[in-house]
Amino acid sequence: MASSLVHLSSPAGGRTAAAPPSLLSRFSPNFCAFATLRPGPTRPTAATPKHARARTCAEQEQKQEVAAPCRDAYEKPAVWNTTAADSAEAAPPLRVGIIGFGNFGQFIARGIQRQGHAVLATSRSDYSAYCSAQGIRYFRSLEALCEEQPNVLLVCSSILSTEAVVRAIPFHKLRSDTIVADVLSVKQFPRNLLLEILPPEFGIVCTHPMFGPESGKHGWSTLPFVYDKVRLADKGDQKANCGQFLSIFEGEGCRMVEMSCAEHDRHAAASQFITHTIGRVLAQLNLKSTPINTKGFEALLKLTENTVSDSFDLYYGLFMYNVNATEQIEKLERAFEKVKQMLYGRLHDILRKQIVERVPI
Amino acid sequence: MASSLVHLSSPAGGRTAAAPPSLLSRFSPNFCAFATLRPGPTRPTAATPKHARARTCAEQEQKQEVAAPCRDAYEKPAVWNTTAADSAEAAPPLRVGIIGFGNFGQFIARGIQRQGHAVLATSRSDYSAYCSAQGIRYFRSLEALCEEQPNVLLVCSSILSTEAVVRAIPFHKLRSDTIVADVLSVKQFPRNLLLEILPPEFGIVCTHPMFGPESGKHGWSTLPFVYDKVRLADKGDQKANCGQFLSIFEGEGCRMVEMSCAEHDRHAAASQFITHTIGRVLAQLNLKSTPINTKGFEALLKLTENTVSDSFDLYYGLFMYNVNATEQIEKLERAFEKVKQMLYGRLHDILRKQIVERVPI
Repeated sequence: MASSLVHLSSPAGGRTAAAPPSLLSRFSPNFCAFATLRPGPTRPTAATPKHARARTCAEQEQKQEVAAPCRDAYEKPAVWNTTAADSAEAAPPLRVGIIGFGNFGQFIARGIQRQGHAVLATSRSDYSAYCSAQGIRYFRSLEALCEEQPNVLLVCSSILSTEAVVRAIPFHKLRSDTIVADVLSVKQFPRNLLLEILPPEFGIVCTHPMFGPESGKHGWSTLPFVYDKVRLADKGDQKANCGQFLSIFEGEGCRMVEMSCAEHDRHAAASQFITHTIGRVLAQLNLKSTPINTKGFEALLKLTENTVSDSFDLYYGLFMYNVNATEQIEKLERAFEKVKQMLYGRLHDILRKQIVERVPI
Repeated sequence: MASSLVHLSSPAGGRTAAAPPSLLSRFSPNFCAFATLRPGPTRPTAATPKHARARTCAEQEQKQEVAAPCRDAYEKPAVWNTTAADSAEAAPPLRVGIIGFGNFGQFIARGIQRQGHAVLATSRSDYSAYCSAQGIRYFRSLEALCEEQPNVLLVCSSILSTEAVVRAIPFHKLRSDTIVADVLSVKQFPRNLLLEILPPEFGIVCTHPMFGPESGKHGWSTLPFVYDKVRLADKGDQKANCGQFLSIFEGEGCRMVEMSCAEHDRHAAASQFITHTIGRVLAQLNLKSTPINTKGFEALLKLTENTVSDSFDLYYGLFMYNVNATEQIEKLERAFEKVKQMLYGRLHDILRKQIVERVPI
């Protein structure tokens, strides 16, 4: 899950890996070439730029060739028509079940829908009205959602509630080729949790969309999406479904970063957690804008504002659920001590010179 | 003196004060209206936008009406011609003597020259070749510079060497209406130093141009310039010369902020010093760019880079020469302790619940 601080990384210096072409290429047919061959719900291709896809959908709606808007794909998964000619090229839309439908779940759902996939949702709170307006099927229980057997179960709960949520999934209701994915800002914890709790045949994809409703409000282009394909069966649809799931974010323009969960957590502790910690410390300082703010100070004010707009639970999660966080906070403490020692040490040197060596200032 | 961190403040929320119009208005004649009346060195007006002034100079050079380039005004202060008609409107260019001609002194000198004033310089190092190329008279000693009796003596030395520099000024060589100004990032220290050491008839203007060669390389427009007219004689030319000196920065487009030295130091400790401290702490951490940098982390990397590009002496100066800095560093320490206590406290609460109350995670 992303926070308002975890957005837009620099393209420079980053190890960027797109999803392997072998997986994604099958979702990149020239849809327009055969769109007129078959009526029924259509799905834009993952690799088509978003604006081009938007035109495609709009044009098709104009031509009355589409029976239902793209986002209603979930209503009629059974009537998705494929011909022998295109079945090897086009895959049916995914049905993604989102568990935890707060701000972040809703935000991710919009991207999934834009890419022509169906969203099913459940949450502790009742989002049925919102979902109804958005063309999303809302389920009052996790059990009811799982009975619909979504291809991907996307856990969008907070770090602190994820273990309870995962333990509550009625796995027996799901197909054995289901993929379970998460979006937490820490990655080793959900990886190990899912490996421990999920039936061994279930697929596992750990992801970290490093953006959120604020930073991604004008689109997801260039925003980093970290993922680790933790476990996928060689046989069956898991690899294809995983590729299709990742192609949602690729299709939205994200910078795809494939990285092990362990590596993610090392990098995140040394960057994201440090950033949040500085923001939290400055928030405690109660920094105020002055008539003589510098650019650097303005950047710190902005950082503080963004930090406190996230819950303390998120910050605590970044600390508690990342094995590298304690080391980083200890390094930060030593760095602060070192700076103070440099300041006071020099001051004391000058004073001693005056007092002992009788050197005037 | 500015650091690479002390630049561009937000226009919002700031108390902004332009120099009083009563002082500056006399330096705002429509020069073009009488430029053709008199040959000789010309000076663009303070209130004319920079680009307009640049055109004015260029046009005049094209017309061969100007005997010497604007920056050579110092060569012929005696031949500055005024007529009875314009003497009330136009003031002769200032002769500004800069003590300490390192990067920052040179940077400020360029603005002074752009506004048509003459620069005289002296420094510990030999800048005679540079000055010769820039149309600046260089003096190998402070004594020699003072013999030229500049209107304004601008101290551009570092915080740490300012006291020695000021004590070395041969005041008896200067006119008694000389104005001494400084550009330090702390203000109460030079204010009290100048009040203590200068002959009582000398004018004192303490300033802080909150920008430097890096942040001001594309012009000084909107960059904050803080000033405090500490002591100006009611009689004589001091007030007029001070207005003319401040009009250099106003003419360059700076955001003029009039503020007492004490107020400056309170604000600067709570903003600039905190910013430098965070940058110094992060530099000790040896932060590295990661493949998953967030925007917030990128801002911290930039801050760190800017901080270490300034000397440790500057940072030490911000600490040692600002009476509010110790309080701020202590507040920062307490804020850091508070954040750690919030993290570890919550962790311990959870562990105790498990151990004592036997509540499973």
